[in-house]
Amino acid sequence: MNHKPAAPNFDSTFRASLLDLFAWRRDVRRFRTEPLPQGMLERFIDIACLAPSVGLSQPWRFVIVGDAGRREAAIENFRACNADALGDYTGDLSTRYAALKLAGLREAPCHLAVFTDRSTVVGHGLGRRTMPEMADYSVVTAMFSIWLAARAEGVGMGWVSILDPIAIGKILDIPADWRLIGYFCLGYPLDEDEIPELELAGWEHRRQSREFIFRR
Amino acid sequence: MNHKPAAPNFDSTFRASLLDLFAWRRDVRRFRTEPLPQGMLERFIDIACLAPSVGLSQPWRFVIVGDAGRREAAIENFRACNADALGDYTGDLSTRYAALKLAGLREAPCHLAVFTDRSTVVGHGLGRRTMPEMADYSVVTAMFSIWLAARAEGVGMGWVSILDPIAIGKILDIPADWRLIGYFCLGYPLDEDEIPELELAGWEHRRQSREFIFRR
Repeated sequence: MNHKPAAPNFDSTFRASLLDLFAWRRDVRRFRTEPLPQGMLERFIDIACLAPSVGLSQPWRFVIVGDAGRREAAIENFRACNADALGDYTGDLSTRYAALKLAGLREAPCHLAVFTDRSTVVGHGLGRRTMPEMADYSVVTAMFSIWLAARAEGVGMGWVSILDPIAIGKILDIPADWRLIGYFCLGYPLDEDEIPELELAGWEHRRQSREFIFRR
Repeated sequence: MNHKPAAPNFDSTFRASLLDLFAWRRDVRRFRTEPLPQGMLERFIDIACLAPSVGLSQPWRFVIVGDAGRREAAIENFRACNADALGDYTGDLSTRYAALKLAGLREAPCHLAVFTDRSTVVGHGLGRRTMPEMADYSVVTAMFSIWLAARAEGVGMGWVSILDPIAIGKILDIPADWRLIGYFCLGYPLDEDEIPELELAGWEHRRQSREFIFRR
């Protein structure tokens, strides 16, 4: 007897909706403050753990930031890094940068900091010898899984990278050798759009995919 | 008049299938040699370009490897790196490593090498000042989009990282400052499974997600 379950069938209706999901996923910076339902974040993390990981190393470390003081310290770190970044621009770009809303840290009910533990022995190092950064990439696929699953439930995610990764590790009191992959906001979005906010704001536009294809 | 299209509604049927997609996506190493339909890979790359990119920088560079000599050189690079990796293991682990099939480069009809161009000025550097690696993470989300879209059409993908990234760049004659994110095989899989091949082979097992959750 074969106890292997039957593989699911993904029909054209599902595939069309999946394409919509890719198209309508946004980096959200404008959240409602309403909390997420109890247990939802942990359920998203269950889904994240279905992501691929190099050598099955599962190097992802999810830090749920609930402490008000630590949340405030992360917000202050973003504020300082964003002010530094603004200083890099001049003229029109400076004006446009200053007008952007780049994070919803204050309003978002959930703060989730995500790290890689490259030192894990899980997976026995397989696939990481010539490309140790594969561990980080595994964590990115886990976070992108949360992003998609959340959007499918009407929950938005924003990825904040305008931060000092070392400072964030200290604020959260985590092992010094964990690497910050991102600091994420989750919550219900104020709005939904098919166009990225940076494109709506005129910061940058999206190119045709053929510009990125090379043949060898 | 508001010309903004209505946001899609993702219902419970879609969400259940999405969970199946996450659960049944595999890193495929056993392919049928049958080619993919004409234009399918380019369509997958269109989907990849819907992925998030830091500052809308779109740093992804997709190199479709069709030349037989270059494919052969990549396979040879994998063979050499895999032999080196085997040399790191002793005893039982060495025997188990040697028995694993870690890539389907020979059989897979499509070879796709994917790089980050960190030097791109697109996006005006936004979000990359303190975390330049964000550009690489953007490319990872693009590739994970292809992985999911492909699986939803019954197409498998395998991510090969047992390679020398610099050598691969030279084999493909691409700009020296592009960074290899991965070398991917795509094609129809020989089999489908809910359990990763490394777990079936007894190399490693998956932990409960609660082991990866920390609260601060």
